[in-house]
Amino acid sequence: MRLTQFSDYSLRLLLYLAQHPDETCTIGDIAQWYGVSKPHLVKVAHNLVKLGYVHSTRGKGGGLRLAKPAEAIEIAALIKRTEPDFHVVECFDKVRNTCRVTSSCQLKHVLRDATAAFFKSLAGKTLASIAST
Amino acid sequence: MRLTQFSDYSLRLLLYLAQHPDETCTIGDIAQWYGVSKPHLVKVAHNLVKLGYVHSTRGKGGGLRLAKPAEAIEIAALIKRTEPDFHVVECFDKVRNTCRVTSSCQLKHVLRDATAAFFKSLAGKTLASIAST
Repeated sequence: MRLTQFSDYSLRLLLYLAQHPDETCTIGDIAQWYGVSKPHLVKVAHNLVKLGYVHSTRGKGGGLRLAKPAEAIEIAALIKRTEPDFHVVECFDKVRNTCRVTSSCQLKHVLRDATAAFFKSLAGKTLASIAST
Repeated sequence: MRLTQFSDYSLRLLLYLAQHPDETCTIGDIAQWYGVSKPHLVKVAHNLVKLGYVHSTRGKGGGLRLAKPAEAIEIAALIKRTEPDFHVVECFDKVRNTCRVTSSCQLKHVLRDATAAFFKSLAGKTLASIAST
């Protein structure tokens, strides 16, 4: 059971920005710090800008900063936006589901409750709470 | 956030056996019913036999049956045995982890609690409870 690398890198990028509140950080700096692919991180950053978590400025001295306080960035909400889906098993996906027992099987409901419990546990957890040392 | 197809198929194979308690079922029957790859299902069945969930008999009239009552097969325990790992993000994996902020970052603890909540929600849920119509 895993989150995507895209969610993992989204969390790490935000964490870096939260730990450098007085700096404008470049993607190059962040990629180098974590030792991860810069092109991959560019996509992650682009998405975080689009979602309103990160503010980006161009040109010399430009870079990335958090677009809102770390206390206002909820982990659960972030993950819900960076994961492509929560199709824990195939039958969660109405379009691709081929399972013939879907109508009688209770598995989907049981796993949906478990996924809800996963997110309920994250309630109130913010970027600030994971960034604190 | 997904379980592996291997876990998905393990659950489906067991579900089929639970719904055919008075039959010895072949992998061919089950693969055909679900419309899934037989070779893939062979591996799934082999693992379920190894884990003690399924009893397999060879020869003419042979096939698969549940090795224990559906009421005794817990979904959480099964998933814990069919998933390769629960490395929700990279830093869960001590061997492969490259993240430089692991020591100060609280993300791992927060996601570990959420994963525990996922499994706590599954407590008491058995193959019998998902197979019931």
